[in-house]
Amino acid sequence: MPSLKNMPKTSIILVNPQMGENIGAAARVMMNFGLDDLKLISPRDGWPSESATANSAGALDIMPPVEVFDTTAEALKDCHTIYATTARPRDMRKTVMDAHQAANDIADKQSQGLKTAILFGGERAGLTNEDVALAENIITYPVNPEFASLNLGQSVLLMAYEISQATSKTTPITLPDGDSAPVTQSELDDLIGRFDQELSERNFFRNPDMKPTMMRNIRNMLTRTNLSEQETRTLQGIISALIGNKVK
Amino acid sequence: MPSLKNMPKTSIILVNPQMGENIGAAARVMMNFGLDDLKLISPRDGWPSESATANSAGALDIMPPVEVFDTTAEALKDCHTIYATTARPRDMRKTVMDAHQAANDIADKQSQGLKTAILFGGERAGLTNEDVALAENIITYPVNPEFASLNLGQSVLLMAYEISQATSKTTPITLPDGDSAPVTQSELDDLIGRFDQELSERNFFRNPDMKPTMMRNIRNMLTRTNLSEQETRTLQGIISALIGNKVK
Repeated sequence: MPSLKNMPKTSIILVNPQMGENIGAAARVMMNFGLDDLKLISPRDGWPSESATANSAGALDIMPPVEVFDTTAEALKDCHTIYATTARPRDMRKTVMDAHQAANDIADKQSQGLKTAILFGGERAGLTNEDVALAENIITYPVNPEFASLNLGQSVLLMAYEISQATSKTTPITLPDGDSAPVTQSELDDLIGRFDQELSERNFFRNPDMKPTMMRNIRNMLTRTNLSEQETRTLQGIISALIGNKVK
Repeated sequence: MPSLKNMPKTSIILVNPQMGENIGAAARVMMNFGLDDLKLISPRDGWPSESATANSAGALDIMPPVEVFDTTAEALKDCHTIYATTARPRDMRKTVMDAHQAANDIADKQSQGLKTAILFGGERAGLTNEDVALAENIITYPVNPEFASLNLGQSVLLMAYEISQATSKTTPITLPDGDSAPVTQSELDDLIGRFDQELSERNFFRNPDMKPTMMRNIRNMLTRTNLSEQETRTLQGIISALIGNKVK
């Protein structure tokens, strides 16, 4: 039986975090439960951060260097399955899970050798719809609706805890290989970029104001499908065929 | 089954807590998960505490008054079953549970109308052996042994979370309706038929033997996506756009 130790660990991705203290708190609770892959998207106060280091109880000194990106999409390039944490409901057709269900799902994916990532929004506004659209799954926390004040560090703590619980139970299984290897985020992005380009050239987005929403809908559909690499190639082939000429 | 709403809730008992901030943090995470019975044993800096109030995000203003006792035994007088949280192993013959098991046990006890309490030690030294001796059960957290720095608020958070999980059934998740009404099979068949026709006319299925397999793959992708009616119309529009001419 292969060891789970060598499986890729979940990335914790903080999108536009504001307070260094909260980044430090996130690092600390990650290390408490054995997670060490922290990525930041445009932290408000820059990086590195003294207040983050001070509040991490030493975690930032012993974990691998935190990576910083300008955009969420860049940080997700090597990921197969993405989870977005949101407090309020979104009008998107995605699988909605609580922390426990999500952790079990992540443990399953890890045991198949797949790379997962969890997106956490900034303290004030949470994730944008564009960020949520990058994810296959939505995680909501079952907090008291009359007092829902979970902060960023606490949200990360609950997921880190649940993942630690779930991965200590899971036994690795083997990944279906060959044709059904799951697509990476960058291959998916290539496909979505192709749709954007070909549709733009053909005036599909008649009203430019509507383009972001329509592209987000297309991304949501394609993300939800959990495409394999082979299927992604098939879709590229379909686009090429459709933009070609009729054969007489 | 009687409603759990009227059952006595678990008491959270902080024994010799030092920092007001941590008491406030405990109150906050308790309220997040529907617990509101907080008791303190000889808090170092007295009670009430401004820093506790400031750090509770309003929880201390809306929960019933916190009770303060001189000794742990006094605070436990009305309790039936007691749990002591400890980081290090104790040389005592007690039932040892993790947070998840303890929460299930507490939910069982509550459903029998029994009053439970959980003891948390102070920041520096944890519970004394005398305090642990008052408890039937020991709760340990499965933290990373190489980085075990869970603070008081975080320890209370994990128990409050697990108890909330154990005492509530997961609510079934429904998909949003409206624009996202699911597609009917006949609309889906129309869409798949459209792919078949347009792709056939453009010689996508070069080898006729492969066509059934390729069409099945396309159907699998589209079926798995659980398309809405709106999305199906979008895909029809995409096909129309792609087979059109480029706009100069």
